[in-house]
Amino acid sequence: MTGKVYLVGAGPGDSKLITLRAVELLQKADVVLYDRLVSKKIISMIPKTAQKIYVGRAVGDDTTHQNNTNDLMVKFAKSKKNVVRLKGGDPIIFGRGGEEAEFLKENKVKYEIVPGITSGIGSATYAGIPLTHRKHASSVVFVTGHEDPEKKNESVKWKRLAKSVDTIVIMMGLSRLDVICKQLVAGGLDKKTPVAVIQNGTTPKQKMIIGTVSNIAKLVKANKITPPTNIIIGKVVDLSQVIGWRKNA
Amino acid sequence: MTGKVYLVGAGPGDSKLITLRAVELLQKADVVLYDRLVSKKIISMIPKTAQKIYVGRAVGDDTTHQNNTNDLMVKFAKSKKNVVRLKGGDPIIFGRGGEEAEFLKENKVKYEIVPGITSGIGSATYAGIPLTHRKHASSVVFVTGHEDPEKKNESVKWKRLAKSVDTIVIMMGLSRLDVICKQLVAGGLDKKTPVAVIQNGTTPKQKMIIGTVSNIAKLVKANKITPPTNIIIGKVVDLSQVIGWRKNA
Repeated sequence: MTGKVYLVGAGPGDSKLITLRAVELLQKADVVLYDRLVSKKIISMIPKTAQKIYVGRAVGDDTTHQNNTNDLMVKFAKSKKNVVRLKGGDPIIFGRGGEEAEFLKENKVKYEIVPGITSGIGSATYAGIPLTHRKHASSVVFVTGHEDPEKKNESVKWKRLAKSVDTIVIMMGLSRLDVICKQLVAGGLDKKTPVAVIQNGTTPKQKMIIGTVSNIAKLVKANKITPPTNIIIGKVVDLSQVIGWRKNA
Repeated sequence: MTGKVYLVGAGPGDSKLITLRAVELLQKADVVLYDRLVSKKIISMIPKTAQKIYVGRAVGDDTTHQNNTNDLMVKFAKSKKNVVRLKGGDPIIFGRGGEEAEFLKENKVKYEIVPGITSGIGSATYAGIPLTHRKHASSVVFVTGHEDPEKKNESVKWKRLAKSVDTIVIMMGLSRLDVICKQLVAGGLDKKTPVAVIQNGTTPKQKMIIGTVSNIAKLVKANKITPPTNIIIGKVVDLSQVIGWRKNA
């Protein structure tokens, strides 16, 4: 008998946006392996009896780092521990939950996956931007701005996306925002399409700037926006002026 | 001074996938206006002192019905009540949260929006289908299969979607699945692309059937699948055979 691994989404930042299931699992955990973007308040929910291990990733250290985390999960599970692998946001929306589950399966370790609020949705909500809207948006795409560097060709079809969906949410795309916007415009997106860049979404430090696909990259530099961010492109961004309900958003 | 309205996502079905913030607000509510897809266990979290009003929608009764709900929110807020408007899933992913917020703003009623796990993500997670994956999917679109009937032209560009995103999640699309699949194929999607239809996702009644874009509509009929469902189209569907971790998924 091995222990079990729980791949758990901690939500977007605001610690109250974690699920009851996640809290219950943290309270029963023997070991918690947690990521960089998990809030301190959530870490403080872990009982003192549990071992807490920070497995946050440093830039440029991807493959080795993920292998270490995978090995730790298997090692603890095989010593009959209850392991919570705690991730910012949601495990299956750019959270590598699928990859980690595959590794656990290969190693015959039992697991469960617990969804969390993805930062893409949480940030938009706290910024007053409805990602869908009966009048303005019948579709929303979540897309990574930072693909697997081992891929030979970029698989995100930015030019095609420009004319096929109403709202675009880019995760981890800040450093490539300029290139992405140019591709979207080349694909036919109106240069005046509004763009919101939200830094530290749902936290007290949330900061948002709004521009258009043609000027947002400059505004990001001028306003010294840094990761983590979510980028939202589409008509619905304009609704934040009406719907926005938080002082600092 | 008016009261306040909280537009709250109750999550996808499993009552433990509700957030701490949502539970806290339910416990302080004077009035809860709740939808059809909110689970009984979540309704049981509402204190007896609070007034519970079912505002679930009947098919074909859209506009009048939404107007009634809007009017109730404003009426109770103006009588200084704490109102929770409790929705299945997430308020801004096909939850009309944006529209309700606009109405509240027009009527000078204060509000907050609390994200919930959308059924699209919850169902996929419980079915072992990672919506994104470093090797197989760099983008996922959430799209409605059931647009506003008042719109003159369908705005979802199914043919274009076929070749521009990796994973497609269709919400409320069961009755139009045949037409949608035909359009996706006409747009260039491989006929063998796997499709999962998940009924009652994340609940003990969760049921999933898997087929391809060319045979899924027939399988849905043969297996008597009924709403509510989430439909997932893309290579990642195949991963459920490896990653699936729930007995009834």
